[in-house]
Amino acid sequence: MNSTDKSKFPLVVIVGGGFGGLEVAKALADEPVDVLMIDKHNYHTFQPLLYQVATGSLEAGSIAFSLRKNFDDQKNFRFRMAEVTKVNADENTIDTSIGEIAYDYLVIATGSTTNFFGNKDIEHNAMSMKSIPEALNLRYMILQNLEEAVLQKTKEEREPYLSFVLVGAGPTGVELAGALAELRNHILNKDYPELQKEHMKVYLVDFLPKVLGAMSDQASAAAKDFLTKMGVEVLLNVKVESYDGNEIKFEGGKSIISKNVIWSAGVTGVVPEGFNEDIILRGNKIGTDNICRAEGYSNIFAIGDVAAMVTPETPKGLPGVAQVAIQQGKNVGKNILRIIRGEPTEPFKYFDKGSLATIGRNKAVADLGKIKFQGFFAWMVWMFVHLISLLGFRNKVVVFVNWVGSYISNNGGSRLIIRRYVKEPVLMDEEAVPKSE
Amino acid sequence: MNSTDKSKFPLVVIVGGGFGGLEVAKALADEPVDVLMIDKHNYHTFQPLLYQVATGSLEAGSIAFSLRKNFDDQKNFRFRMAEVTKVNADENTIDTSIGEIAYDYLVIATGSTTNFFGNKDIEHNAMSMKSIPEALNLRYMILQNLEEAVLQKTKEEREPYLSFVLVGAGPTGVELAGALAELRNHILNKDYPELQKEHMKVYLVDFLPKVLGAMSDQASAAAKDFLTKMGVEVLLNVKVESYDGNEIKFEGGKSIISKNVIWSAGVTGVVPEGFNEDIILRGNKIGTDNICRAEGYSNIFAIGDVAAMVTPETPKGLPGVAQVAIQQGKNVGKNILRIIRGEPTEPFKYFDKGSLATIGRNKAVADLGKIKFQGFFAWMVWMFVHLISLLGFRNKVVVFVNWVGSYISNNGGSRLIIRRYVKEPVLMDEEAVPKSE
Repeated sequence: MNSTDKSKFPLVVIVGGGFGGLEVAKALADEPVDVLMIDKHNYHTFQPLLYQVATGSLEAGSIAFSLRKNFDDQKNFRFRMAEVTKVNADENTIDTSIGEIAYDYLVIATGSTTNFFGNKDIEHNAMSMKSIPEALNLRYMILQNLEEAVLQKTKEEREPYLSFVLVGAGPTGVELAGALAELRNHILNKDYPELQKEHMKVYLVDFLPKVLGAMSDQASAAAKDFLTKMGVEVLLNVKVESYDGNEIKFEGGKSIISKNVIWSAGVTGVVPEGFNEDIILRGNKIGTDNICRAEGYSNIFAIGDVAAMVTPETPKGLPGVAQVAIQQGKNVGKNILRIIRGEPTEPFKYFDKGSLATIGRNKAVADLGKIKFQGFFAWMVWMFVHLISLLGFRNKVVVFVNWVGSYISNNGGSRLIIRRYVKEPVLMDEEAVPKSE
Repeated sequence: MNSTDKSKFPLVVIVGGGFGGLEVAKALADEPVDVLMIDKHNYHTFQPLLYQVATGSLEAGSIAFSLRKNFDDQKNFRFRMAEVTKVNADENTIDTSIGEIAYDYLVIATGSTTNFFGNKDIEHNAMSMKSIPEALNLRYMILQNLEEAVLQKTKEEREPYLSFVLVGAGPTGVELAGALAELRNHILNKDYPELQKEHMKVYLVDFLPKVLGAMSDQASAAAKDFLTKMGVEVLLNVKVESYDGNEIKFEGGKSIISKNVIWSAGVTGVVPEGFNEDIILRGNKIGTDNICRAEGYSNIFAIGDVAAMVTPETPKGLPGVAQVAIQQGKNVGKNILRIIRGEPTEPFKYFDKGSLATIGRNKAVADLGKIKFQGFFAWMVWMFVHLISLLGFRNKVVVFVNWVGSYISNNGGSRLIIRRYVKEPVLMDEEAVPKSE
């Protein structure tokens, strides 16, 4: 912040404008604090719908919400587009790409990124989908490979461009596999009269014996069934050995020729330097107490995917899902205010509202406590829940119109190639071009 | 085309999926011909609204229409995403980035690109806006420079990031200047509480003494008046000498410090190699006869911005506007069918439906033959005309919803920075990354 900003209020710096960071900022509205949000992007990404951007049925602008615009009515809110590199806890400052920033309270809400488990060739050759630039990159690759496929003269030459391998049968892999199957079944031959749906193959691969391992057996079995009926080949108990950009090899000898391998088989926390190593837990997460405070730090909080709240009540931590981040964000916002007022804090209690995952254009699986259901009704619930969630943002009408149009026409989306994809996903820093000054 | 495609029908190859190319393809629907459209992008760009993408009030997906999707009901239509490098008229083939393609009839509808008149430093340092990648690049630059401006501590340091110079007072420059003035007047302080509208300056510069030189004096004067009232500084009779990325210098000594110079002061045709040099006229356009045939070539047509129809009736050629391309496209499509049937062709007659240009969010100027009007009603006509024009595409509802929302809220658009901008606009080829095979 500008040192000429003389304010009597404590400054809460929130690193990350995802689901968690947003809730902290909102909880501090109209309160006697200053809020500074920092994010490397100038927008919030509505992650549940990223897979639709990747498969061309939704435009990026529909799921990205300008952080400045979102908080333009909140008087105590300021924003800086920057990356945080280091926390200097002793001095109450952070090092960022735009300089050093001092804080009174710090909230780390940086989320998670793709975990390749040390496999360098997979990291280099496979695609991932954790952000809008990555989702767009993935879309461009898919569409460009379809254009390439059209130019091939034999089945063997065409196969690598038309095979799609999703590694990781969690919600991301399942949703992508379903969307690709829809593309294959309903759109491929319309847009590419030279190609038949039989030419295109979609595989979903996982190390574990279950699809959607974190959900109920019922949901898991139904999801596998839906996918198989849509034409997806589900390969379970399969471990990926290597991928060179052309052939993906599995333990045991099997392999698939494909230029389209998308990895969503693990996540790892995005942790700035400067923390005591001992509190960084498995999966690169910051261990916290039951009020989301980083262990051993009195004024630094960590929430969402980057945090691991390991307590007697939650010995295994909490799932890396949006609801955890959202609820923790509200809890931290309120607790910061209590601390400022000298009041006792409230411990965080996660209220599990259930899980949903969608498969294709009209099926989903739902675990809502004891109630479990699958199919079209589950999909309506999924759509309703996400639309309500979008209500906090201004793009909801556009998204709704897009969805309704897509559903009715069975031909949603623009499927545009705006630029050629790159193997290494394009990040902000890597694209910086030195200006000629 | 695949050589195994044995067809009895003549093949019409259309190079370019812009306004002109689309009309040729549509005119050939359900006729005894094969149609192959080639474009370096897999989408049509609705150019009149590009400036809204550049200033963040419309998403790219709303004005880009997948060519494959657009023609998926037309049975004789095929598409290839490729660039055409050369025409081999003697052999009836074209060289493209995906190989050689043979044709029976060829239509060049490649449009125009930005003309920097040989000024290399301006070409390197200024931005232009002739395509979606360029418009997005421009948007990212504008938004990133606003983020930079926020970090500056003094007026002098802030000024280069907050000054915007539009060179060329044609419709593009006028529309961009108006949109930037709107951003300044209504959005700047809301999104960037650290900045005041007085900090931001918008200049519109032209060599000629008129704004919108191709329109009536009435329209021209009204446009200048609207812009000035919105806070744009209009500098006429001013010639640009140089621009080094920081300071733009004018003949006579005046200069402006600005990192945001946008050049729309001229166009030049995009002509593949292989044509007889003598028929390439001023502005790099292919000279044609009165049925749009390239002079001296019996089966090659040229329409739209890349063509110059110089005839006794049209000694100065025709304006580079959408209506010319659209009408010529229809004429060429029908004439090709007449030629195939052995019937006499119809000469092309341009029906000037008038000109419209919009200034800001609720003003426009309109010259419709003898009827000239300016202001809010002209803006409603402008909006109506463009919505009707979009009716041929499937995105119209989304665009309409976006516009209505923007108008009501006075805060339309997402203003997202998806990637860091680059000084050299990103084109498809330049971003190609060698794959590791």
